[in-house]
Amino acid sequence: MDTRSMSYSHPRTSPYKVGVPPKQKFWKEFATSLKETFLSDDPLRPFKDQTVPRKFILGVQAVFPILEWGRNYNLSKFKGDLIAGLTIASLCIPQDIGYAKLASLAPQYGLYSSFVPPLVYALMGSSRDIAIGPVAVVLAFTATFFAGITQAALGILRLGFLIDFLSHAAIVGFMAGAAITIALQQLKGFLGIKKFTKNTDIISVLQSVFSSARHGWNWPTILIGASFLVFLLVAKYIGKRNRKFFWVPAIAPLISVILSTFFVYITHAEKRGVEIVKHIEKGINQPSVGDIYFTGDYLLKGVKIGIVAGMVAFTEAVAIGRTFAAMKDYQIDGNKEMVALGAMNIAGSLTSCYVATGSFSRSAVNFMAGCQTAVSNIVMSVVVLLTLLFITPLFEYTPNAILSSIIISAVLGLIDFDAAILIWKIDKFDFVACMGAFFGVVFVSVEIGLLIAVSISFAKLLLQVTRPRTALLGKIPRTNVYRNIQQYPEATKVPGVLIIRVDSAIYFSNSNYIRERLLRWLTDEDEKLKSGGLPRIQYLVVEMSPVTDIDTSGIHALEELFKSLEKRHVQLVLANPGPVVMHKLHASKFANLIGEDKIFLTVAEAIETCSPKFAEED
Amino acid sequence: MDTRSMSYSHPRTSPYKVGVPPKQKFWKEFATSLKETFLSDDPLRPFKDQTVPRKFILGVQAVFPILEWGRNYNLSKFKGDLIAGLTIASLCIPQDIGYAKLASLAPQYGLYSSFVPPLVYALMGSSRDIAIGPVAVVLAFTATFFAGITQAALGILRLGFLIDFLSHAAIVGFMAGAAITIALQQLKGFLGIKKFTKNTDIISVLQSVFSSARHGWNWPTILIGASFLVFLLVAKYIGKRNRKFFWVPAIAPLISVILSTFFVYITHAEKRGVEIVKHIEKGINQPSVGDIYFTGDYLLKGVKIGIVAGMVAFTEAVAIGRTFAAMKDYQIDGNKEMVALGAMNIAGSLTSCYVATGSFSRSAVNFMAGCQTAVSNIVMSVVVLLTLLFITPLFEYTPNAILSSIIISAVLGLIDFDAAILIWKIDKFDFVACMGAFFGVVFVSVEIGLLIAVSISFAKLLLQVTRPRTALLGKIPRTNVYRNIQQYPEATKVPGVLIIRVDSAIYFSNSNYIRERLLRWLTDEDEKLKSGGLPRIQYLVVEMSPVTDIDTSGIHALEELFKSLEKRHVQLVLANPGPVVMHKLHASKFANLIGEDKIFLTVAEAIETCSPKFAEED
Repeated sequence: MDTRSMSYSHPRTSPYKVGVPPKQKFWKEFATSLKETFLSDDPLRPFKDQTVPRKFILGVQAVFPILEWGRNYNLSKFKGDLIAGLTIASLCIPQDIGYAKLASLAPQYGLYSSFVPPLVYALMGSSRDIAIGPVAVVLAFTATFFAGITQAALGILRLGFLIDFLSHAAIVGFMAGAAITIALQQLKGFLGIKKFTKNTDIISVLQSVFSSARHGWNWPTILIGASFLVFLLVAKYIGKRNRKFFWVPAIAPLISVILSTFFVYITHAEKRGVEIVKHIEKGINQPSVGDIYFTGDYLLKGVKIGIVAGMVAFTEAVAIGRTFAAMKDYQIDGNKEMVALGAMNIAGSLTSCYVATGSFSRSAVNFMAGCQTAVSNIVMSVVVLLTLLFITPLFEYTPNAILSSIIISAVLGLIDFDAAILIWKIDKFDFVACMGAFFGVVFVSVEIGLLIAVSISFAKLLLQVTRPRTALLGKIPRTNVYRNIQQYPEATKVPGVLIIRVDSAIYFSNSNYIRERLLRWLTDEDEKLKSGGLPRIQYLVVEMSPVTDIDTSGIHALEELFKSLEKRHVQLVLANPGPVVMHKLHASKFANLIGEDKIFLTVAEAIETCSPKFAEED
Repeated sequence: MDTRSMSYSHPRTSPYKVGVPPKQKFWKEFATSLKETFLSDDPLRPFKDQTVPRKFILGVQAVFPILEWGRNYNLSKFKGDLIAGLTIASLCIPQDIGYAKLASLAPQYGLYSSFVPPLVYALMGSSRDIAIGPVAVVLAFTATFFAGITQAALGILRLGFLIDFLSHAAIVGFMAGAAITIALQQLKGFLGIKKFTKNTDIISVLQSVFSSARHGWNWPTILIGASFLVFLLVAKYIGKRNRKFFWVPAIAPLISVILSTFFVYITHAEKRGVEIVKHIEKGINQPSVGDIYFTGDYLLKGVKIGIVAGMVAFTEAVAIGRTFAAMKDYQIDGNKEMVALGAMNIAGSLTSCYVATGSFSRSAVNFMAGCQTAVSNIVMSVVVLLTLLFITPLFEYTPNAILSSIIISAVLGLIDFDAAILIWKIDKFDFVACMGAFFGVVFVSVEIGLLIAVSISFAKLLLQVTRPRTALLGKIPRTNVYRNIQQYPEATKVPGVLIIRVDSAIYFSNSNYIRERLLRWLTDEDEKLKSGGLPRIQYLVVEMSPVTDIDTSGIHALEELFKSLEKRHVQLVLANPGPVVMHKLHASKFANLIGEDKIFLTVAEAIETCSPKFAEED
């Protein structure tokens, strides 16, 4: 007998006993799984054995991340933030006014929403790249208030883990789709079209573009827009080409705003139909507490809209935040995000702002302009403040076309073909989700895009727990290791023994399937053997290593499997059930039913008992 | 160096290469997963290499299971079915009339629905115990028709696997809840209460029971009902006590019907307020094709109601069918069930029947009366036919109280305390689902009960894929096997190496969590070691056996993990990634990133490379 298997095997009379860990109390189990779900990031760790004052400081820091990163904030970072802040400020002003118009509010309301919320976010948010802006939706302050409440509540209830359900693939698709949608939206300003669709889907946009082609387009506008777009793209190209000139693309938008404004001012292009920003009301936000309804139908309506808007706004913010976090390789804390967004919108609702969230186009510009921290938001909001107080006239002559060019040149950089290709290579199912998000956003709306992506991803999860994989194992030559013979073609089957690995927890959702599948493996194998005139299967060894859990339906399935096998005179053998599974096999008396001696530590030991001759070979 | 590890290990220079199976084409992969989802029962297997006529016969059998079981149908089976059929017939007649009244239709319509649908079901259904009856809902024939269409469609699309989402635990709870609800409903007839709530929840039922206690109860009715209930329970006890007398409980209901009818007839108890069945219209179903609306608002309304009713009715039928299937240990074919129920309701809608499905109370009696096959349904429908044609007068004097007693005594047997206790022992989460179903049914309605149970079960599935388990592994003495040290306290950790097993596929839903969790394991361990003045961790070995799949988010998480580990000067090592995972590690170039030589066939081999000295010890 060769030493290899010998030395490894234990005296056949007493194979190594499969351990049954000390039983856990229900409440303990439950508490653990609660902790893993809601406190998986272990937020209290830093507080462990700290002095009380230190604990207090840590606590404040936890709520206001700015106190953490603020301490090692430096000039070079500020440079980036300053440029980015100025850029998005120069961008946000006309954008906000546009939104305000869209929401049929006086222009300054748009600006208000770019003043207070960004400040709040900068203090509390965990994303460095998100630039805050209002969402182009008509919403009363009441709705804004309850949107804030909803978001804060989710965060405080630590439901941040919900953002884990946004997969990388979904975000890639979502991002590309959003980029295209935004670029298309800008065609209005870029082509100087007067009457433009309010829908964001590609069909209606292109319709209104081409329907207005004959007489709707304004050539001076296009001239300005196009020339500066070229300028911006060139600047970008230079920046990419040579890292030394990173500042060129960063400064370009601001330059183009100044130049174009000046240009329009001297040429009076606005007289030739070039859309400009025009007059803006001076003065800062008015308090709006009085305008929040806490009674009557408005309350109910506000609450409804608020909850929905809050969820959507949050999802978008997170999708955006994660996008840039992934690019710069840092983490977004879902819970902090929710609390920050919530606080921001509550504050906003008290100061005449409507629902604000991460604005995709603005964040894109912010990112491209090389922002380092949330300080760029502070810069923006300060600029907006100053604008509101003093310099609104200066922006009067800024042509909207220039801002369209800035946005277009910014978002085009967010379409990540390589990522999409890689996703296709790695996981087809992910690719479908990615495309779902993309086309959903492009052809319908951002919300639908997200919905599609999430649904597809969920379908995948359910498929995994409904139709898990099972693998036929064989012995790898010159070892006592048993592996998937698909993966290791050289692995040899054990005569008279069928070894199947079940690759999932056994739950009600798959217990019937697994039972049927195992029996099918057996039937197929027996047919092959019979046709080959070989001895039939006498043992079915189920390798349970991947079976991390089993529920009552699973136990029932095993019992039914055992019965069916008995009828076929095949013995059921289990290899390496985990701690949880062992518990339940005992609790349900199934261990006694098949016999303790049919449960082994490893497949190898099972084989030594089922087919000793084979185990000794090679 | 001891032979044990020696003999097992391979020359350290060349550890066994982890296999990368031949790449599968996307469409092939996709087709497989489709097949596993929709054709997992491999319905075409029997057709394989058969003659054409044989194939045809098999095809017909597949649609009409009766042709299969019909051939080995025998007298003893028929005896059971006959008794059961007669019993449920004697039961269904007043029940149907009751339902018809509830739906404000003429009494005979109730009977119609117990004539045609059961016949159709008997030919096509795959449950042996379900007894068909109308659901107590007001529904036009149009709705019935589209309910049928919906069900049939689901079956033909092979969405039968949806029934896998009804867990055993949920069914136990559902069953007990339904039993109590039905028993409570019967208090109307049992106490002879005139005005009784239409709600099924325990609160409203008990309210109308006690509110009518003063003058609403009819003592003669209670006398008859109670005495026969005692008789039935005794009969049941005898049957349970001594298998020889199985026929006593089976025949008891029929006897009590006959006796009580005769008793009322001679004593004219009905004059003392004992409710009886009264007059029934003679003659069989009229065709109702003309009454189905294929145009106008009625169509839309009918379709809507039909779809909902179809789904609910189906879910109930399956819940009921599975309940008894589990008791008698046979399988329900979800797809066949749907088609059968669909055909049944379509036929019903053409013959003046309203939506029929598995009736819980009736199936309970059917089961208790010892039905063997769907023939009991045929018997019932024949009896109903004869009743309709000739003997309606005979049932005129049957007191409703007796039928209440029959139902009560039947359903009480369906409350399975032992099962509930076992579920509590095996799986707390299942127990919650079970209780959810129970209280949902008892306090609200059957539909809500099912909804609650299903939601809880889904929550569990999602939890499993969101917060999977991770385990710390150690070396089991005198072997090269590495196992969970929680399960095997004697297992010893490897100095300088941390071995963690990840117990789930790595998907977007858990990739962040897993990355964080692994780092947390590392931090905790390092702290322990430092406090113990021991050398720090240099290798993190991730045992991937249970990781059956990974998606792009998962790959990203691994990349991030790798980066964080590099910062900590810890090497990442993988053990035994499966075929799918290996593919993706290569496709994503991650394998190259960490280095092929960091991926091992087993933990043992990984350890031999990470900590050779340890591997040689013991």
